[in-house]
Amino acid sequence: MDKEIVQVILEKEPSVKNPILIEGFPGIGLVGNIASQYIVNELKMTYLGAMSSKYFPPLAVLLGGVVNMPVRIYEDAAKGLVILTADIPVHPLASFEIGREIVSWAQSIGAREMICLAGITVMGEEHRVFGAVSRPELMERIKEKTEVFEIGTITGITGSIMNECRIRNMPAVCLLGETASTEPDPRAAIAAIETLNKIYDLGISTEKLSEQAEQIELQMAQLASQMKAASPEEQQMQLPKEFPMYG
Amino acid sequence: MDKEIVQVILEKEPSVKNPILIEGFPGIGLVGNIASQYIVNELKMTYLGAMSSKYFPPLAVLLGGVVNMPVRIYEDAAKGLVILTADIPVHPLASFEIGREIVSWAQSIGAREMICLAGITVMGEEHRVFGAVSRPELMERIKEKTEVFEIGTITGITGSIMNECRIRNMPAVCLLGETASTEPDPRAAIAAIETLNKIYDLGISTEKLSEQAEQIELQMAQLASQMKAASPEEQQMQLPKEFPMYG
Amino acid sequence: MDKEIVQVILEKEPSVKNPILIEGFPGIGLVGNIASQYIVNELKMTYLGAMSSKYFPPLAVLLGGVVNMPVRIYEDAAKGLVILTADIPVHPLASFEIGREIVSWAQSIGAREMICLAGITVMGEEHRVFGAVSRPELMERIKEKTEVFEIGTITGITGSIMNECRIRNMPAVCLLGETASTEPDPRAAIAAIETLNKIYDLGISTEKLSEQAEQIELQMAQLASQMKAASPEEQQMQLPKEFPMYG
Amino acid sequence: MDKEIVQVILEKEPSVKNPILIEGFPGIGLVGNIASQYIVNELKMTYLGAMSSKYFPPLAVLLGGVVNMPVRIYEDAAKGLVILTADIPVHPLASFEIGREIVSWAQSIGAREMICLAGITVMGEEHRVFGAVSRPELMERIKEKTEVFEIGTITGITGSIMNECRIRNMPAVCLLGETASTEPDPRAAIAAIETLNKIYDLGISTEKLSEQAEQIELQMAQLASQMKAASPEEQQMQLPKEFPMYG
Amino acid sequence: MDKEIVQVILEKEPSVKNPILIEGFPGIGLVGNIASQYIVNELKMTYLGAMSSKYFPPLAVLLGGVVNMPVRIYEDAAKGLVILTADIPVHPLASFEIGREIVSWAQSIGAREMICLAGITVMGEEHRVFGAVSRPELMERIKEKTEVFEIGTITGITGSIMNECRIRNMPAVCLLGETASTEPDPRAAIAAIETLNKIYDLGISTEKLSEQAEQIELQMAQLASQMKAASPEEQQMQLPKEFPMYG
Repeated sequence: MDKEIVQVILEKEPSVKNPILIEGFPGIGLVGNIASQYIVNELKMTYLGAMSSKYFPPLAVLLGGVVNMPVRIYEDAAKGLVILTADIPVHPLASFEIGREIVSWAQSIGAREMICLAGITVMGEEHRVFGAVSRPELMERIKEKTEVFEIGTITGITGSIMNECRIRNMPAVCLLGETASTEPDPRAAIAAIETLNKIYDLGISTEKLSEQAEQIELQMAQLASQMKAASPEEQQMQLPKEFPMYG
Repeated sequence: MDKEIVQVILEKEPSVKNPILIEGFPGIGLVGNIASQYIVNELKMTYLGAMSSKYFPPLAVLLGGVVNMPVRIYEDAAKGLVILTADIPVHPLASFEIGREIVSWAQSIGAREMICLAGITVMGEEHRVFGAVSRPELMERIKEKTEVFEIGTITGITGSIMNECRIRNMPAVCLLGETASTEPDPRAAIAAIETLNKIYDLGISTEKLSEQAEQIELQMAQLASQMKAASPEEQQMQLPKEFPMYG
Repeated sequence: MDKEIVQVILEKEPSVKNPILIEGFPGIGLVGNIASQYIVNELKMTYLGAMSSKYFPPLAVLLGGVVNMPVRIYEDAAKGLVILTADIPVHPLASFEIGREIVSWAQSIGAREMICLAGITVMGEEHRVFGAVSRPELMERIKEKTEVFEIGTITGITGSIMNECRIRNMPAVCLLGETASTEPDPRAAIAAIETLNKIYDLGISTEKLSEQAEQIELQMAQLASQMKAASPEEQQMQLPKEFPMYG
Repeated sequence: MDKEIVQVILEKEPSVKNPILIEGFPGIGLVGNIASQYIVNELKMTYLGAMSSKYFPPLAVLLGGVVNMPVRIYEDAAKGLVILTADIPVHPLASFEIGREIVSWAQSIGAREMICLAGITVMGEEHRVFGAVSRPELMERIKEKTEVFEIGTITGITGSIMNECRIRNMPAVCLLGETASTEPDPRAAIAAIETLNKIYDLGISTEKLSEQAEQIELQMAQLASQMKAASPEEQQMQLPKEFPMYG
Repeated sequence: MDKEIVQVILEKEPSVKNPILIEGFPGIGLVGNIASQYIVNELKMTYLGAMSSKYFPPLAVLLGGVVNMPVRIYEDAAKGLVILTADIPVHPLASFEIGREIVSWAQSIGAREMICLAGITVMGEEHRVFGAVSRPELMERIKEKTEVFEIGTITGITGSIMNECRIRNMPAVCLLGETASTEPDPRAAIAAIETLNKIYDLGISTEKLSEQAEQIELQMAQLASQMKAASPEEQQMQLPKEFPMYG
C-alpha cells in the first residue's frame, strides 16, 4: 500500500483469516453507507480501526458525542466478515488511487472476496437489486438470486474497486439497490442486504431496519438539512482569504 | 513504459509477432469505439488484458453482468492483429502522456504498424473516410483507397498517437469516418472498417453492423440517456462534501 | 513533522511539560479565534513563536503597528497551557495535512490533551456550548458540563484535528459555541470559555470580554468592512497579468 | 535541457555551426507562425526534426495527408539559419519553462543569435514593424531599419524567450509585425520578413506571400472555421465522463 | 535559496556590505513599483541583475527598445542601498514561497534591514503614509515620522515578506502610501519616498516625480489601456487550443 495515498490505522488486527470484505461508500440513496453501517450495528461487529487519506474531505463524524473516523473497519470473526463503511464520498479524481489501495489492503489481509454495496437509480418503483461480478465464473453465484446488471456502467469508487478486483483476479460481487430518488433510501438498503443474505447465507435480520425505515428517512432528511445549517466552519470554505482577527 | 501513467495488465501474452495494432477510442460519433469493438466481436478475437491509468475516468463497464475494463486489448493471431478498444475518452491534459505510453507499449510488443480509427465531422451528408499517415512513404498505401485528409488537424488522443508514431518512426495510418452529428454513428464505423478492409485486405464483414445499425443507434441513444439516469454514484460527484451518515 | 507542509518557529521553547494544548482557528462566528486570543490576553500568556505554511493565505497581521504572525503559539507555564491561535482559515484541501502536523507537533512537545474551540450554528437563540470528545472514556469529563454534540459532523481544520487525535490516541475535547449568525460573536466565545472553565477548572475571567462584547462586535464589523477596502494589494489578486510599469 | 519539459527529436543533426535561430509561434495575426513557415517554404529549408512537450496541446497537423509535428525545426545551411516554427500556442503557465528550454537548446547547438517573430496590435492602419533587443548594444543593428518598440511589454512565449536570452547573454532581436485585427494577417508577416531582410541581409523574396495574401487570408479563415467544425474528437473534450459503449 | 522557485542572476555582485534592501512590487496605486523605480532613476543606481521565477507571469518589459527583466536589482553603494523593483505582481498562491526566497536572498547578501514599499486604500483624501515594523523595538524608529498602521492586515507578497522577516529576526519596515483609487498614484509614491527620507535620512529628491506626476498619471493610464490593446500575443491566451497554421 502507498501510505502517501491511504493509511490504515488499526487499533486491533483482524482475527479472521481470508474474510469476505464488504465495502459501502455513500452514493445515490446512501445505499452502501446505510446498508454497511446497519450490518455493523446488527451483527455487533468489532471495531478494528480506520482508513485515512488526504483525499478524503476534512470531516469528523460524531456519534453520541464521540469522534468517529469517517471511514471505519469492523469485523465479525465468527461469520468471517470484515466491513469497510464510509460516511464520505471519494472525489472522482482520487477514485482510481483510493480504489487501488482498498483492494491492495484487502489482499494484504488475505480477503478471499470483495462485496460492493451501492445504489442505482432506475425509472421504476420497485426495489430490485442489480448484481454484477468481476469474473464470468462468479455469475453462477448471483444469477438466480438477483437481477443481473446486463449492460451499463458503474462509476466512482465502486467502479474503481470493481475494476481493480478484475485486474488483480480478486473475486468481487457488486450489489446495487434500486432507488427512485436521491434521498436516503433505507428500503433499497434492506433489499441489498436481503440479496446479500441469499447469496452468502448470512442471515442478517433486516427487521430493525424495516421498523426504522420511516424514522430513518425522516432522521436522515432532518440530519441532512440540519447539518447544512449547523456544520461548524462550513461557511469558512466560502469566506474570503482575509479574515478579521481579534486583538 | 512509465507505470505511474499507464499499466498494461495482461492475462495472456500476445502470441502474434509484429502485429498491426488498431486503436479505437470514443470521440465524435463514437466511430473509433464502435468500429474497434465490432471488429473484436466479428473476428471473435481473444481477450489479452487491459490498460489502466489514474488518468482514466473511474468507471467499470458491464457486459452481461461482468466487469469489463474500459480499455481492453484483444488479438487475432491468424490475422496478425492486436486491438486496443476504449469505452472512455482521454482527458486532453493527459493525452500526450497516454499517447506516448500507448506507442511505447506498441513498440514493446513489436507492433509493425499502428492504425487509428476515429470520426470526423464534415458538413456533407456522405459517409466518406479520410485518411492520414505518419510518414510520406505511407501515402502510396492509402491514396487510392480513401480520401486524403489534405490539410487540417487531428486533436486529442488520436492526434497524440499519430505525433508519437511520427517521432518514433512507427508507421501509422489514421482513418477518420465522416459523420454529420455527435450521435453514435455506426454507419461511419462501417465506412471506416470497409476502408480498413481495402487497405489491409482484412475481409471483415460489416454485414452484422449494417443489420444492426438502426438498432445500435437506438440502443446507444437509449443507453446514453438511461446511463445518465441510472449510473450508480453519478450524483455523488455533485453532492456536497458533508454527507449524512447512518448510525 | 513535515517541514514542507508546516514549520514551527519558536523564539522560546515551551517550559511546561505535558501541557494542555488549546487551538482556536477562525470559523463560524470567529468563535475559536476570539476565544483563544482572549485567553492569551487575559492570562497574559508568553509568546513562544509562530506556525508558518505555504498553505496559509499570504497575510501579515498588524497589532499596534507590529507584524504578528497569523498563527501564533503562547504558553502559561503556571496553568500548564499552550495555545495555538489563528487569524486565518485553513483551506479545506490543506486541512488534512495541516491538522496532522498540528497533532504531530502537539505530541512532539508532550501535550497531554488537545482542546479545540470553534463555533456552531444552531437555529435557536441560546448560547449553549456543544461538546465532543476523541475517545468514549473522555465523555465522563464533559457530559455534565456541556451539551453533548450527539450526532453530526465537524468539518474543516477542527474536524481534521479531532480525527487525527482519534487516530493517534491523543485525548481531545472539542467545544463548539452556539452562534446564530455568521457575524463575529464574542458571546459565543464567552460561553465556550466558561465551559472550558467548568471542565478544566481554569478560572479565566470572561468579564472583560463581556464588557467589550458590544464594542468588539462593532469593532470587528468595522474592521471587516474597513479591511475589505483598505487591504493593501488586495486588488492585486484581481488584476490582469499585464501590469503597467514606470520607467 | 530538461526532458521532462521539452524533448527535441532530430531526424538529422544541424550541419550549420553557430546559426541564427528564428522562432515563430502563433499569436496575434498568426504573424510569427505565417512568417516562419513561409521562410521555410521559400528557402526550401531542410527538415531537421521536432520539439515535443506534454505542455503542448494534443494536436497533429496534416499537410497533404501526412502528419506534421506542430513544432518543427528546419535549417538552411548555406544561409546559416535554423528555424523553429510552431502551429500551436504555448499556455502562459508553461511559457517560462518552455522558453527556458528553447534558449537552452539554442545554446546547445551553438546558436549565435535569436530572432523572435510575432505580431502586435496597434490602433493604426499601417504595417509597421516594431523591434526590440535583448541587450543595449544590439540597438545599433535595428534602430535605422525598424520602429523601435520604445515602451511596453511582450507577453507569452516570446516574452519568456526574450527574457531568457537577456539572462543568458544571448543576443536576441524581436520583430513585431503590426496588425489591426485578430485575423490571420499575411501582410504583417510580409512586413516582418522584409525587416528581417533589411537587418540580416537575407534576401528572402516575399513575392509569393504577397501574391497569396488574399488567398491565404481566405484560406486561413476557411480553415479556422472548418477546423472548428471538422476537428475529429474536438467535441470529446466537452463530453461527460460517462460514455456509452458498444458491446 | 531554492532555485526551483526563484533564481537570482547577477551581472555584477553587490559591492555594498550589509545594505538596506528596499523592495517595491506593484499593488494598489502601483505605489511600490513607482516609488522603487523612481529611486533607481533618481539615484542613478547601478544595475546588478534580475530575479526570475516560473511563478512570475511570462512578460518582458521594454524600455527604449531593450528588454528589461520584470524584477530587477540595483545598488547605490555610497548610500548602502540595494533595491528590488518589480513590474509584475506575484500570484497569491506563490506569495509565501517567493517571499521566503526574497528574504533568504536578502540574508545571503548580508542585508541589515528590509524596507517594503506598497500602497493602501483608505477612505480619506490625504496622502498619509502608514508604517508597520517586523519587531516592537523598531517602532521607535518610525512612530514620530509616519502614521502607525495600528490594526489591520497586509496581504500578498508584502505580507509574506514582512512575516518572513519577523520569523527570521530580520528588521523590516513597511511603508504604505495612502491612495484613494486603483489608478497609478505617483503622489502616494512621493509621500512614501518622503517618509523614507525622514526615517533613513536618504535625501532623495522627489521634485522630478512631483513635476511628472500629472504626466505620469496620464502616461500610465495611456500605457495601461494601450497595453491592453497592443500586447503582442495577449489574445493568444484566450484562443482555442486548435490553431490554424500556414503550409
